[in-house]
Amino acid sequence: MKTLLFAKLHEYYDDMVAIRRHLHQHPELSFQEYKTAAYIADYYKQLGIPVRTNVGGNGVVATITGKKGGKTVALRADFDALPIQDEKDVPYRSTVPGVMHACGHDGHTATLLVLAKALHELRDHWSGTIVCIHQHAEEYAPGGAKAMIEAGCLEGVDAIFGTHLWATEPTGVIQYRTGPIMAAADRFQIVVKGSGGHGAEPHKTKDAIVTAAQLVLHLQQIVSRRVNPLEPAVVSIGSFISDNAFNVIADRATLVGTVRTFSEQVRNDIEREIEQIVKGTCIANHCTYEYSYTRGYPPVVNHEKETAFLVSIAHEVEDVTHVVEIAPHMGGEDFAYYLQHVKGTFFFTGAKAETTTNAYPHHHPKFDFDERAMLIAAKTLGLAAIEYMK
Amino acid sequence: MKTLLFAKLHEYYDDMVAIRRHLHQHPELSFQEYKTAAYIADYYKQLGIPVRTNVGGNGVVATITGKKGGKTVALRADFDALPIQDEKDVPYRSTVPGVMHACGHDGHTATLLVLAKALHELRDHWSGTIVCIHQHAEEYAPGGAKAMIEAGCLEGVDAIFGTHLWATEPTGVIQYRTGPIMAAADRFQIVVKGSGGHGAEPHKTKDAIVTAAQLVLHLQQIVSRRVNPLEPAVVSIGSFISDNAFNVIADRATLVGTVRTFSEQVRNDIEREIEQIVKGTCIANHCTYEYSYTRGYPPVVNHEKETAFLVSIAHEVEDVTHVVEIAPHMGGEDFAYYLQHVKGTFFFTGAKAETTTNAYPHHHPKFDFDERAMLIAAKTLGLAAIEYMK
Amino acid sequence: MKTLLFAKLHEYYDDMVAIRRHLHQHPELSFQEYKTAAYIADYYKQLGIPVRTNVGGNGVVATITGKKGGKTVALRADFDALPIQDEKDVPYRSTVPGVMHACGHDGHTATLLVLAKALHELRDHWSGTIVCIHQHAEEYAPGGAKAMIEAGCLEGVDAIFGTHLWATEPTGVIQYRTGPIMAAADRFQIVVKGSGGHGAEPHKTKDAIVTAAQLVLHLQQIVSRRVNPLEPAVVSIGSFISDNAFNVIADRATLVGTVRTFSEQVRNDIEREIEQIVKGTCIANHCTYEYSYTRGYPPVVNHEKETAFLVSIAHEVEDVTHVVEIAPHMGGEDFAYYLQHVKGTFFFTGAKAETTTNAYPHHHPKFDFDERAMLIAAKTLGLAAIEYMK
Amino acid sequence: MKTLLFAKLHEYYDDMVAIRRHLHQHPELSFQEYKTAAYIADYYKQLGIPVRTNVGGNGVVATITGKKGGKTVALRADFDALPIQDEKDVPYRSTVPGVMHACGHDGHTATLLVLAKALHELRDHWSGTIVCIHQHAEEYAPGGAKAMIEAGCLEGVDAIFGTHLWATEPTGVIQYRTGPIMAAADRFQIVVKGSGGHGAEPHKTKDAIVTAAQLVLHLQQIVSRRVNPLEPAVVSIGSFISDNAFNVIADRATLVGTVRTFSEQVRNDIEREIEQIVKGTCIANHCTYEYSYTRGYPPVVNHEKETAFLVSIAHEVEDVTHVVEIAPHMGGEDFAYYLQHVKGTFFFTGAKAETTTNAYPHHHPKFDFDERAMLIAAKTLGLAAIEYMK
Repeated sequence: MKTLLFAKLHEYYDDMVAIRRHLHQHPELSFQEYKTAAYIADYYKQLGIPVRTNVGGNGVVATITGKKGGKTVALRADFDALPIQDEKDVPYRSTVPGVMHACGHDGHTATLLVLAKALHELRDHWSGTIVCIHQHAEEYAPGGAKAMIEAGCLEGVDAIFGTHLWATEPTGVIQYRTGPIMAAADRFQIVVKGSGGHGAEPHKTKDAIVTAAQLVLHLQQIVSRRVNPLEPAVVSIGSFISDNAFNVIADRATLVGTVRTFSEQVRNDIEREIEQIVKGTCIANHCTYEYSYTRGYPPVVNHEKETAFLVSIAHEVEDVTHVVEIAPHMGGEDFAYYLQHVKGTFFFTGAKAETTTNAYPHHHPKFDFDERAMLIAAKTLGLAAIEYMK
Repeated sequence: MKTLLFAKLHEYYDDMVAIRRHLHQHPELSFQEYKTAAYIADYYKQLGIPVRTNVGGNGVVATITGKKGGKTVALRADFDALPIQDEKDVPYRSTVPGVMHACGHDGHTATLLVLAKALHELRDHWSGTIVCIHQHAEEYAPGGAKAMIEAGCLEGVDAIFGTHLWATEPTGVIQYRTGPIMAAADRFQIVVKGSGGHGAEPHKTKDAIVTAAQLVLHLQQIVSRRVNPLEPAVVSIGSFISDNAFNVIADRATLVGTVRTFSEQVRNDIEREIEQIVKGTCIANHCTYEYSYTRGYPPVVNHEKETAFLVSIAHEVEDVTHVVEIAPHMGGEDFAYYLQHVKGTFFFTGAKAETTTNAYPHHHPKFDFDERAMLIAAKTLGLAAIEYMK
Repeated sequence: MKTLLFAKLHEYYDDMVAIRRHLHQHPELSFQEYKTAAYIADYYKQLGIPVRTNVGGNGVVATITGKKGGKTVALRADFDALPIQDEKDVPYRSTVPGVMHACGHDGHTATLLVLAKALHELRDHWSGTIVCIHQHAEEYAPGGAKAMIEAGCLEGVDAIFGTHLWATEPTGVIQYRTGPIMAAADRFQIVVKGSGGHGAEPHKTKDAIVTAAQLVLHLQQIVSRRVNPLEPAVVSIGSFISDNAFNVIADRATLVGTVRTFSEQVRNDIEREIEQIVKGTCIANHCTYEYSYTRGYPPVVNHEKETAFLVSIAHEVEDVTHVVEIAPHMGGEDFAYYLQHVKGTFFFTGAKAETTTNAYPHHHPKFDFDERAMLIAAKTLGLAAIEYMK
Repeated sequence: MKTLLFAKLHEYYDDMVAIRRHLHQHPELSFQEYKTAAYIADYYKQLGIPVRTNVGGNGVVATITGKKGGKTVALRADFDALPIQDEKDVPYRSTVPGVMHACGHDGHTATLLVLAKALHELRDHWSGTIVCIHQHAEEYAPGGAKAMIEAGCLEGVDAIFGTHLWATEPTGVIQYRTGPIMAAADRFQIVVKGSGGHGAEPHKTKDAIVTAAQLVLHLQQIVSRRVNPLEPAVVSIGSFISDNAFNVIADRATLVGTVRTFSEQVRNDIEREIEQIVKGTCIANHCTYEYSYTRGYPPVVNHEKETAFLVSIAHEVEDVTHVVEIAPHMGGEDFAYYLQHVKGTFFFTGAKAETTTNAYPHHHPKFDFDERAMLIAAKTLGLAAIEYMK
């Protein structure tokens, strides 16, 4: 079956490239991916594969059925683009001003569509069910994954696999990690409310700037004192605003920052400890406060067995030259939600051609990737699905 | 002579009110007081009193000469207005939109003009020379006083006296203080320059917000640790600006603040110590900085003998019901410059009518004062001049 | 009367020196001045002057009565010594090992004893009553003044005067000040209680050192932000102790410090604000605390009229060459208590001989003073009493 | 061979227990292990195995030679005890007051001695060379490992393996980790030197307590801002001492603390950043400093291949029920030095009997372990050596 599948994928590689380039030329922003969703749905319909549309928004779910008796595996590809102006000089550059597939989601989609076609055509050679989750809105919280799950896309699913093409790692590399692989990325805001006055009369005021400055320093102690040193965590204040005349004492100061964590417990602890520090510091300074903590995506936490399984699969793919365990990324991914419901793993597929020396990073106006990596992704995901369903 | 002078002043009181109200209706901003200066100069010319115009800008200096043998005393009145919309409902309200005599300088001018007329008419009854300094631009640094002095307005002067009508103290009160009576009011700005980056990667950055927050706290130690506790001083940070996205680490933060002092040494010390703290803190944090310290007016430091003399004079003025020593004001006044060159004293003349319960403070859109206080100011300044010249 | 009094004082100057030197050779520590008290009481008894002993402890009060009709004035001299080894090489050095009149209280006592004798002998020449308060235990809180007042030493008294010989100011100088002249000197202690642990596991602890370090910095803001800049105040932490192994996290840290103020309101404010800061900071850090604030003497606050009166008296004493207004001292004096009950003033009498270049400061093992200053003190106090009683 | 080896080990298990209990009864402190070293050397001599004594101190190295052609593998066991009073109630409790094998090194030694005997007897069944490193002084820096290496104990060695019996994990568990498994544990001391004075006169001083308190807070930023969040690190200040009278300002304050890291680069960075912060903060406060940073053992960093190899071996040992990847320990081990010179891995062997509910932790006066775990350790180390030499 592996031989059959890989042969099919090679056969359809040109289609894969064509689909990817079509999508690349017609990118759509998160939550506005109407044409892309229709394109995907049409693709499945033409193949005679059952497809659900408008799943939790613009999500599309296709189901491919093999022989009786196997498990159900989901494969996920996201398809939204970014508000970035394409600055590449290639024939397939974006035709939409200010919108661009600058993260490779076009490649994810092309990979899954062609893989689905191949698996469908080979459906007499494997047992089980494959759910193709085409997800909208990965780039913009609250994201599409949560809504698609609530709309039932994981019903009956035993495990899920997903990958991200990674344009700064060489093609041939598969990067994996058991446990946390991508961070939870949250946002918090603290408004310190003191009592303003004349700069010459501090004793008649409650100085909001001094109080907020204390907070900036004390919040450093969350990472240095209150989180297990073995648990990665970041608390950064990106913005401190209290804009007044020079001879005034501020009645208000606003801090805005971000928290990065890899475990729900650490995340909860930090949310609570920030408030503890804010509360006590404001009491010490006769100030009051408003505190809000807005959660972004949770951490992506890969399951141990499924990750080990994926590693063993990756070793079976001839084009894969290196299978590497990596340190976690501090960025976020709403694939996290799927892994809260079913077992699975999320991995990175290197997509930098040998000839590329300085690859542009993701979200860069000149971002591009090595299209041959799509073939590797398709092989790995496809083989993983078939083997897992057994 | 006292009797003669006071009688004249009473006689001309209506003129004084009329002049004041004329000026109140035609206020001019600092450094733009062309018509007011012309009005003053014309007044003296009509009386046949020698007058210099354009002294250090719009300044006007008139010289009244008595009999031979006495000293030379200067009396000063400022005449600029403020960028405030007059909201009073009185016949003499400002006719100039957005400009208003909201600090009583119109009253100072009317007082001195009428006093000068009276003294001139009585010039056979006293010995010495009286220099009437009509100063422009008190409200806006660098002020008019410094330029008028450089233009020679204090040449030959033995002592100077000046007063400020004070609308929140009852008419009848004279407030004095030996030594510092008004503060030096300076401005400083610190720009902390770090190296920005992603909020999730603090180790690749030099966090300007954390560094600036340290500065806010450390600058508190100037007053608490580095200034003699017997020397009043204030260091306040009015503005803290570092406006970035929440998931960013700031490369720059700007602090702006004020320093208030009553002695040049403390002022110099604080200017230097701020930089010491900024320098060391930036070294500790791998940051650099820009630091600027802009001096406002120096402290107004009254001379001991002249202040005691003024107190004794005030007790001679029947309308003066209370002569009170006061704590220093934290505000600034460029009368300070005169006292750096010649002896003298600056005092406050209460100008709140008995019937006024809640007087509006100076610089308020509804500010006004009890015009009878002008008579008290004129008597006190006039008697002081005559007695001092002896 | 002034002539008579001053002549008597000159006549008895040798006695004054003899008494002072006798006391100097036989110093007694605070609250242990039994022989000194007996010496004083005997002196009065021999003169036939009514005397109360054991007033509030070792205090002695003698009452001299003049003609009818005048007021009652108290004069105060303290008489305790210090736990210092006398290192002077003079015939009258201390005979008691480790105990020494290193602050001049021997001089105060000799001054008042001889003055009392003179006034008593001249009692037909003045009207009123003079209460001679010989106070024990000025050097050691809670001091003797409070207990003597509670024991009635101020009953019927209209005003009180007292002076301190000051060995670092030239003889001939009288230093005065209206309002606060000596500070309140208090002590506070803060014990921060966290939860200790291994230095490698901060997240399992509540770090008492970090919390206490925050307190040190935040307490700076009391003076810089919470006290009127025109009110002198000091908050200093003298001791920070948390002594543990290097690889431990501290469960406890102790701060001990002092507060200096010149007004009861500021003093109360600071006592309260310290706790506010401690409370809030401990909440922010999940710590608890013990806070104690122990009051030393209150500030010595001179009354305005009595101070002006004393100044006018000082000008009448020919040996007084300079009458100088001074800045407050940061040291304490329990004369403060008398001035909380009756009007009066406390002043300094210069006691450095012209020939002395480097005078040893008070409390120094080689401290001494110019004995002629006692004559000036006696004249000033005596004349003040007589004139005030009129 | 595995069968032969394991059978021998079972056969000699009673000897292993007897040796362990003998050592347990006769513990010796680090660097004073003379009798223990002699005991070990005698053991080898009686077996006719070549042995070097006094290797880098009390170290003993025995060399067992198999057939020609294989690699050379070192196995290490440490043999020093701790200054702890044995409080166990067992027949084999320590006979030396205040000294105790409270960490299991007696077990390590018994394991290796018996394993060596078995391997020696089976020397015709395997190829290569086994170096038995019996190391003194693991418990007390600078430790014995470094000196033994300098004395040549690793000459010709291709790889090294070592284990620690772990009394709080169940017997049957093997814990491993690639990369850092135990931390570097360093000590630093900072003496801040200011300029002392009276508590009432801060402006005449440089307050060492305030400066040191700033340091405590700023040092928090090393972990929160200056170290990669994915790299575990701890900076803790265990001791803050500045012991003075309450009314004094401190001229000196001493901070002592610990740093824990898992990479040499982070360790170097932290050593340097502490000084950067100290330097800048002292400049800001006109203070000077002394800074010393004393390195304890480096981190134990396991090699990837040897760790994977050990994991595969562990799966071959039937008594091993769980092979578990663990998070790093924050404690230190001088096994670290061996791994800086040759490849290898250090692992933990669970040693808590099923019947034990609350095991006492290492270094506890009642510490003990399940002796059957020695058998597991011997099997794993022995099989690893034989297989690696192939």
